[in-house]
Amino acid sequence: MKTHAIGIDFGGTNTKLGVVSHSGRVMAESSFSTTQFSTPPAFAQKAGSEIEALLKRTGVSRNKVSGVGIGVPGLVDHARGIVHVLVNVPGWNGARAGALFERHWKLPVTLENDVNAMALGEHAYGIAKGYQNVVCTTLGTGVGGGLILGGKLYHGATLTAGEIGHIVVEPQGPLCNCGNRGCLEALVGTQGLLDRARVALRKKSGGVLHGWLKQGEVLTPHLLAKAALQGDRTALQVWNETAEYLGIVFAGIANFLNPDVIVVGGGISAAGDFFLGRIRKVIKARAMAVPAKKLKLLRSRLGNRAGVLGAASLNWKNF
Amino acid sequence: MKTHAIGIDFGGTNTKLGVVSHSGRVMAESSFSTTQFSTPPAFAQKAGSEIEALLKRTGVSRNKVSGVGIGVPGLVDHARGIVHVLVNVPGWNGARAGALFERHWKLPVTLENDVNAMALGEHAYGIAKGYQNVVCTTLGTGVGGGLILGGKLYHGATLTAGEIGHIVVEPQGPLCNCGNRGCLEALVGTQGLLDRARVALRKKSGGVLHGWLKQGEVLTPHLLAKAALQGDRTALQVWNETAEYLGIVFAGIANFLNPDVIVVGGGISAAGDFFLGRIRKVIKARAMAVPAKKLKLLRSRLGNRAGVLGAASLNWKNF
Repeated sequence: MKTHAIGIDFGGTNTKLGVVSHSGRVMAESSFSTTQFSTPPAFAQKAGSEIEALLKRTGVSRNKVSGVGIGVPGLVDHARGIVHVLVNVPGWNGARAGALFERHWKLPVTLENDVNAMALGEHAYGIAKGYQNVVCTTLGTGVGGGLILGGKLYHGATLTAGEIGHIVVEPQGPLCNCGNRGCLEALVGTQGLLDRARVALRKKSGGVLHGWLKQGEVLTPHLLAKAALQGDRTALQVWNETAEYLGIVFAGIANFLNPDVIVVGGGISAAGDFFLGRIRKVIKARAMAVPAKKLKLLRSRLGNRAGVLGAASLNWKNF
Repeated sequence: MKTHAIGIDFGGTNTKLGVVSHSGRVMAESSFSTTQFSTPPAFAQKAGSEIEALLKRTGVSRNKVSGVGIGVPGLVDHARGIVHVLVNVPGWNGARAGALFERHWKLPVTLENDVNAMALGEHAYGIAKGYQNVVCTTLGTGVGGGLILGGKLYHGATLTAGEIGHIVVEPQGPLCNCGNRGCLEALVGTQGLLDRARVALRKKSGGVLHGWLKQGEVLTPHLLAKAALQGDRTALQVWNETAEYLGIVFAGIANFLNPDVIVVGGGISAAGDFFLGRIRKVIKARAMAVPAKKLKLLRSRLGNRAGVLGAASLNWKNF
């Protein structure tokens, strides 16, 4: 019987690896700089030697390993093991990465989009365990999502389902990187969040946030969250606005897709419980009573291990 | 082998019945006034005698009939055959209709929400045949939807999935019947459409539409469509605005749910090809290239038989 799996979280800057037990325990982890091993062959070789070392370290024998799952920050064809588009690491577009990795690693390999892998991880080991219909979101520089429907990962017609960041909230809102206007990502992604904060700061004087900025601190989502926790009015207003935008989209999803759970992860979700509470209020005010009553809005439980655990869970899941 | 099925389209005003072959041919149809037989027992008895008559008329013997499917204009528990909420016909909330009907009709009975049944009908016999992921919409007084995902009807956590009419388009827009603001239904449902038309008419004088209204014609979606086809500027503007609202929502769905097809049905969809063409343009401008290129926006093919055919298809589908 296979007792363990390898999970690889392929990041634009760093790549993390882990040996994970069937029950979701991370036995050992390592990482390397993606930029230093960025071509497909270099990556395959480096990850291969890391896998070797991890297995040696944990004492897990190769024939107990079900396979290697890898979450890729781009568009992949999971069925054929092909990377279609990888925006942040050159040289991968069109790469038959699955076959290449299998040759190097001598283990079955499953590729998946990284946010989809995270959604699977939350469903297999995290806060979404046991739910049939789950929308997993990551709020950070980008705003991404993965869908578990009927207990299985849902890919959609072009394998691109889950792009919650590109649902429109304000039809005449700011231009988004995708070319559309007023997308959720353009409003609550790091850039949009900070742009709105700058506008709010210009309108209001006083408060701890203004003070910190005068002392030379740099405006970041983290600083904005810290200021809100200290009751800074400008910061609170920006977070309330952010919760309103997210709540509008989540209410629409509650009505349209009727999930059991929406999981919120990523840097911006760390703004604290007051933030999640505000989003819940907006959902309650805007969604229909029946789906809203059932819907749970929960914070990701896997944190920065979501990538490795999600990738590992690819080896156990049928989809 | 079962060769036929009965489909019942339970409407607020009229109920339609049909004997349908496995391939989707309607062998015979009838209808009765729902208002005259509105209680569950009266409905069961009346529909029972109509089924009897239809079978006699078509010569289809009862043991060739796989069952009776019924599309109900409300919230139903398809698995337990219970009507939860039926807004337009009193006396049905909580009714164990499935068991009641089976007692009366001596055939297996499947209940389903009417829009879900229509989506199944388009998937089994209509324009969405052969596609895995389909969003079916009905544009009329209300704006409803049904989802086929992975080739199966998708119900969601509270069996209420598909409420596309209650996705927000304009966060500060008009109040919707659901209590929310700026929902798609509040903007493009019959009431919202006509409200916007009246505002536009007040702003612009001249044109055929103004003329017809002065002659005593009543403003309806049909009249608005007729005026647009004759090049009336006010009417065209209202339809363009309507296409913009629908396109914004469909673009978000393309990005988030990534369906193969969106089917547009219901009275308002009859506005003509120019209208669907406008919606396609908005989707192309606002959705991401990969999902938008694959997405087909198609008009319902089953027309006013969609209800009966959808209900009949409940007898063949696994979900």
